Amino acid sequence: MREVAVIGIGMTKWGELWEKSLRDIYVETALKAIDDSGVDHIDSMYIGSMSPGIFVGQEHIASLLADYLGYPHIPSTRVETACASGGLAMRLGLMEVASGMNDIVLVSGVEKMTDVGGDEATYALGTAADQEYECYHGVTFPGLYALIAVAHMHKYGTTRKQLAEVAVKNHKNGSKNPIAQFQFEVTVDDVLNSVKIADPLRILDCSPITDGSAAAIICPVEMARKMNKPVIKVIGSGHATDAIAISQRKDMTWLESTYRAAQSAYKMADKKPSDIDVFEAHDCFTIAELCVMEALGIVDKGKSGEAVEGGRTAVDGDIPVNPSGGLKSKGHPVGATGIAQIVEIVKQLRGEAEERQVEGARIGLTQNMGGSGASSVVHIFERE
Amino acid sequence: MREVAVIGIGMTKWGELWEKSLRDIYVETALKAIDDSGVDHIDSMYIGSMSPGIFVGQEHIASLLADYLGYPHIPSTRVETACASGGLAMRLGLMEVASGMNDIVLVSGVEKMTDVGGDEATYALGTAADQEYECYHGVTFPGLYALIAVAHMHKYGTTRKQLAEVAVKNHKNGSKNPIAQFQFEVTVDDVLNSVKIADPLRILDCSPITDGSAAAIICPVEMARKMNKPVIKVIGSGHATDAIAISQRKDMTWLESTYRAAQSAYKMADKKPSDIDVFEAHDCFTIAELCVMEALGIVDKGKSGEAVEGGRTAVDGDIPVNPSGGLKSKGHPVGATGIAQIVEIVKQLRGEAEERQVEGARIGLTQNMGGSGASSVVHIFERE
Repeated sequence: MREVAVIGIGMTKWGELWEKSLRDIYVETALKAIDDSGVDHIDSMYIGSMSPGIFVGQEHIASLLADYLGYPHIPSTRVETACASGGLAMRLGLMEVASGMNDIVLVSGVEKMTDVGGDEATYALGTAADQEYECYHGVTFPGLYALIAVAHMHKYGTTRKQLAEVAVKNHKNGSKNPIAQFQFEVTVDDVLNSVKIADPLRILDCSPITDGSAAAIICPVEMARKMNKPVIKVIGSGHATDAIAISQRKDMTWLESTYRAAQSAYKMADKKPSDIDVFEAHDCFTIAELCVMEALGIVDKGKSGEAVEGGRTAVDGDIPVNPSGGLKSKGHPVGATGIAQIVEIVKQLRGEAEERQVEGARIGLTQNMGGSGASSVVHIFERE
Repeated sequence: MREVAVIGIGMTKWGELWEKSLRDIYVETALKAIDDSGVDHIDSMYIGSMSPGIFVGQEHIASLLADYLGYPHIPSTRVETACASGGLAMRLGLMEVASGMNDIVLVSGVEKMTDVGGDEATYALGTAADQEYECYHGVTFPGLYALIAVAHMHKYGTTRKQLAEVAVKNHKNGSKNPIAQFQFEVTVDDVLNSVKIADPLRILDCSPITDGSAAAIICPVEMARKMNKPVIKVIGSGHATDAIAISQRKDMTWLESTYRAAQSAYKMADKKPSDIDVFEAHDCFTIAELCVMEALGIVDKGKSGEAVEGGRTAVDGDIPVNPSGGLKSKGHPVGATGIAQIVEIVKQLRGEAEERQVEGARIGLTQNMGGSGASSVVHIFERE
């Protein structure tokens, strides 16, 4: 396998982008990544997108967006594994370059979620759960994660305040990220007093509905070395799945797909959790970030709540998680999230993360997750 | 790049499968491919599916189907490029094995189209066209292909009878295929007198709405050589795109994406059109098969109609096209079609195609297409 590096990243402000269509948002972001990389063409492209069919009535976006981007004939592929679609786009691009099939590949994600009303958005997101065994019976994602939160609190003594601390930290980080959807801080009291969605989760425990895109350019490491910029190598990749219905899992507080994807990535990279300087994790709900930390092996089972409460996951902590603001504050256009995590890690490893820079970061990890954890994609990056 | 071979195929009867769900259909077919290959596990899987979100309200099928198949933790990826999703699943599996990331990969496709009514199915299929520039103005796929047919007839003198001959040939072939949806023959008069859908196309010019799945197992060639069966190598792969709206193409009778995908595949395989013994082509409408033959370089531009009329594309002709019965007779569960083409070519190269066997076939080609030709995937296979 050929070694692969990230040579360009692109992202513009996320939010409720009423004035832009899916194609506008996508092209703006992809062109930014191409500009950042300095390449004069791309050979192929991958797009992670969860449900453009339901959100905007348009499938076949791989061809549509290649054409709108000005590359009307190159191979272009859309991949989907719910909210982990972006991470998966990166993994497939990595395999294409590693195989030698092509050299310069655009990996990207996009979702335009606000063209439908709230009910329809909830329905669209619900298609990532088991329709026959979960959604048809009335449970959607806030409900599923609420069940996970209750189980975690019961099993490990995790507190309501510890969940709130995840939101407080991520909003603090997001307030320093000029492309985040929500650039403001919240307090523990704000979270605890916000509207209840699915007990014990409140609105400030939940990531928002967002329009947005993110893009990166990858190529063989030997090609990247000839460019005048830091070489950010993709040294590990893992992808794993799990039962889609949480009732089918032995322990609903344990994310087996994240654990397995991480183990694959650590093995490929020959690294262990303590070697990682900075993490971007899939905090679609506050409880998700806690479960992810445990499955990644950053903390022991049941110890995530106290780690967050003790400040260990802050930008200046010993295990910084979500310096970008995470899904909670940066926003969560579902198919784009996995690539946005990579954009942040590349900024961190390049030393370009400004006020939210993790000092001296050389190795970073992204963890992107679909549904209530039925799919996970983990990547590890190292600055050469 | 490592060389790759197909070591197992699986398919069960296609049709209106009211008694089976998407998961049932998928698992039945995938298990058949695993059985046929003789392997004791799979490392990873790819699923081509166009729109399970709209057709059955379920995205995230990669994880769902891995779990239902009995492999709840392996990497599983859904890919979509409209009706070429199946072909693309093969191409991604090929890159995964070629890269060395994994050895034994299941490549598959599935679509359950009859759980919705005709209007909704037409809407779902329409999401493969340009929503903003085509569908919102009232044109759906029969209309788009009717425009292409009129242009082809005008430019090259292709006749209404020649279009009908495509359906007659494919139904004749399908009548000998025990897993085809329509196992009966039709005459030219039957086609010409069938219900008009979009002038000049009639119902017997159109592929049907179908439930179905298809699967294949691939692995490195050196592994395949140790098994006691014919080694069917994947010697060429090509994927290309085009403007999604036909109004944006220079010549709507010319399938640039098929041409480019075919040229890539021929180059990789070091073969030319005349080296190919048998073709499976994407005849979603009769006119499509004619345009595809020209873009593949089997016949000169404008000469496809007379080639079909003269019997050259029959099973015993010099350029056999769609011995399986094609989409027209075998059925067209959109995401599964590209893999079903591979199933047929493997049967042909193994010499297992019974009454529709192309004598002495050693090299075969599959051409799978999305929308009105905005994406194409071509593969070339050779029996070692």
